[in-house]
Amino acid sequence: MLDFNVHFPTRIRFGRGKIEDLGKEILCYGNKVLLVYGGGSIKRSGLYDQVLQIFRDNNITHVELSGVQPNPRISSVRQGVELCKKHEVHLVLAVGGGSSIDCAKIIAAGAGYDGDAWDFFTRKAKINYALPIGTVLTLAATGSEMNANAVISNDDTKEKLGTGSPVLIPRFSILDPEYSFTVPPEQTASGTVDIMSHIFEQYFSLTPETFIQDRLAEAMLKTCIHYGPIAIAQPDNYEARANLMWTGSLALNGLLGAGKRTDWATHDIEHEISALYDVTHGLGLAVLTPYWMQYVLDEQTAPRLAEYARNVWEIEEKDNIIAARAGIKKTADFFKSMNLARSLKEIGVEAEYLAEMAKKATSQGSLGAFRKLEYQDVLNILQAAYGGDM
Amino acid sequence: MLDFNVHFPTRIRFGRGKIEDLGKEILCYGNKVLLVYGGGSIKRSGLYDQVLQIFRDNNITHVELSGVQPNPRISSVRQGVELCKKHEVHLVLAVGGGSSIDCAKIIAAGAGYDGDAWDFFTRKAKINYALPIGTVLTLAATGSEMNANAVISNDDTKEKLGTGSPVLIPRFSILDPEYSFTVPPEQTASGTVDIMSHIFEQYFSLTPETFIQDRLAEAMLKTCIHYGPIAIAQPDNYEARANLMWTGSLALNGLLGAGKRTDWATHDIEHEISALYDVTHGLGLAVLTPYWMQYVLDEQTAPRLAEYARNVWEIEEKDNIIAARAGIKKTADFFKSMNLARSLKEIGVEAEYLAEMAKKATSQGSLGAFRKLEYQDVLNILQAAYGGDM
Repeated sequence: MLDFNVHFPTRIRFGRGKIEDLGKEILCYGNKVLLVYGGGSIKRSGLYDQVLQIFRDNNITHVELSGVQPNPRISSVRQGVELCKKHEVHLVLAVGGGSSIDCAKIIAAGAGYDGDAWDFFTRKAKINYALPIGTVLTLAATGSEMNANAVISNDDTKEKLGTGSPVLIPRFSILDPEYSFTVPPEQTASGTVDIMSHIFEQYFSLTPETFIQDRLAEAMLKTCIHYGPIAIAQPDNYEARANLMWTGSLALNGLLGAGKRTDWATHDIEHEISALYDVTHGLGLAVLTPYWMQYVLDEQTAPRLAEYARNVWEIEEKDNIIAARAGIKKTADFFKSMNLARSLKEIGVEAEYLAEMAKKATSQGSLGAFRKLEYQDVLNILQAAYGGDM
Repeated sequence: MLDFNVHFPTRIRFGRGKIEDLGKEILCYGNKVLLVYGGGSIKRSGLYDQVLQIFRDNNITHVELSGVQPNPRISSVRQGVELCKKHEVHLVLAVGGGSSIDCAKIIAAGAGYDGDAWDFFTRKAKINYALPIGTVLTLAATGSEMNANAVISNDDTKEKLGTGSPVLIPRFSILDPEYSFTVPPEQTASGTVDIMSHIFEQYFSLTPETFIQDRLAEAMLKTCIHYGPIAIAQPDNYEARANLMWTGSLALNGLLGAGKRTDWATHDIEHEISALYDVTHGLGLAVLTPYWMQYVLDEQTAPRLAEYARNVWEIEEKDNIIAARAGIKKTADFFKSMNLARSLKEIGVEAEYLAEMAKKATSQGSLGAFRKLEYQDVLNILQAAYGGDM
């Protein structure tokens, strides 16, 4: 196990009707809020009206940034920053999924910065300060509601980049699984894969003797595998939504990666795909993940991949390589069982751009840690995932 | 799953040499410290000198409360409160195991209270304020380094009682597994059982569909079972100590109990034993736990006890009652394999006091939630554990 520092400062309010705590939580930080959300779903569900009623009941004034897209854009961030500066906002409240939350985070950072918020992604500026952030989560997927990270897309440069800072960790997050009842099956499946991918990126590591972290990761993977299909088949199954939502938060709050070298190559590759094609992040991950696993499988990585197969998929096979292959197949089949696309071709990626994506993904150097990937490796993975013959 | 609120605000600094962050962490809260510790072990190990050097290097002044006993006494707390008030201390720093930390917590609360600190345990006063608390952990067991609770003994009333408040959660905890290299085998075994018991108290519950919590609990149990014996056989095995230490913190920081009705009957019964006989808490738990499991096993509890047997001990048996019994036997055998006592008789408990302990344990009403225990139930468990014929 490696040395580590961790901190989980987000106050979690989890369960039915927890929105009733929203006013009290906001008032810890002030009474002027920037409300950040996406499309009309929170209006259709009545959540928007509920939030506004809470604002009125608590004498909280607010301004709004709506229309935040999946793969949130730096242009939305810039609008939000303007609003914060103009209205001297005290807290940025995201109501929605990871896109709204990520957008809110960078708005909160931008509000205290004189330059352009894209500077945080080009490493021109570091995030040392941000307005307090709160979230009301409506979708189990990104884990952004409990962590320090944000990913933003830039349409001008065709980039999708991440950044992070402890000051971006939400002060509070309200997690009511009922809000995710209306998430459609494909998004539920993508969200489940997103959670699983976060776990994989931290689970697959060569750091020795991270027993506790690895068993925790397997616990979370099993939860996704158990409840993902239930939530798809029964969208209003509270227990399924609750288990997925809490697992989504725990999967990327620092717990699983503490004490390990983590990988993140699959995420890095997927970001190039969704930067170019605006596909749902989880969908891109679902296509890539089995091919990444297949490609990185070698003598060195086989023990861990085999452990995954045995502990998560209950594969009883002594040979590590054979067990690992069986686990990879199970993974691909599981994603398929949730009706997710199995090839890049299927999700609209064009073969002629694979090389460009591989080049961009490795422009800052090799990817990953479980097995290091150079340009040709990434291209090989993309090509295999393009055909999708697993 | 039930609704829940959780918050893990402790900054964790985990690994070799993390003590180097101590000065910086303290200076967030002030420069006058009450240093709380137990016997001479931190002097023998050199940790005491190291802490004092850090104080000097950072212009931190300090006063000391030493001699905190296992099962820390309210008399020590009172001395510490005096020191805090007299010297206007800014932060209470515990260096040691759960006893020093629990003592430090109640000192920190008492420093802001006009009455006697025992009032917090008799419910005469509520803890709404406490000085900031920091810890340097030397023993994996109680989880106190990351939670809101403290247990204190009162020699005058022969009581051992617990209390808690969010303001008691340590602001920072330095967890260097190397500090636990000198923990002797019996204490290592007791600490391992203490951790496992914390997990059991939250794992054994009738709350339905707490899949994620239950798999996380099993992950932690497996870690204890894997590394407890290694740490006993090889006291300076870093990986074993590290896995146990981190698991100890995670086992009782709120994660496992979130969303469930938890039990705590075994702890309540054990507190009556260690209040009267001053035995090591984990040792008392090791004797009681299998008898508690055996006693509560019925048609209603069998599915969960069988799940424990299958998922933790890999028992392949379809009948729930038979599987549960096999899991209980495995548990008793595991504790025995760590050379822990198997009966109350062996640890010096006298048969004539069993009824009194059962009476005291149930003086506020029935115990537990997995299965409710009244006076006669507790007495039955104590009597079975007294003989120790499992």
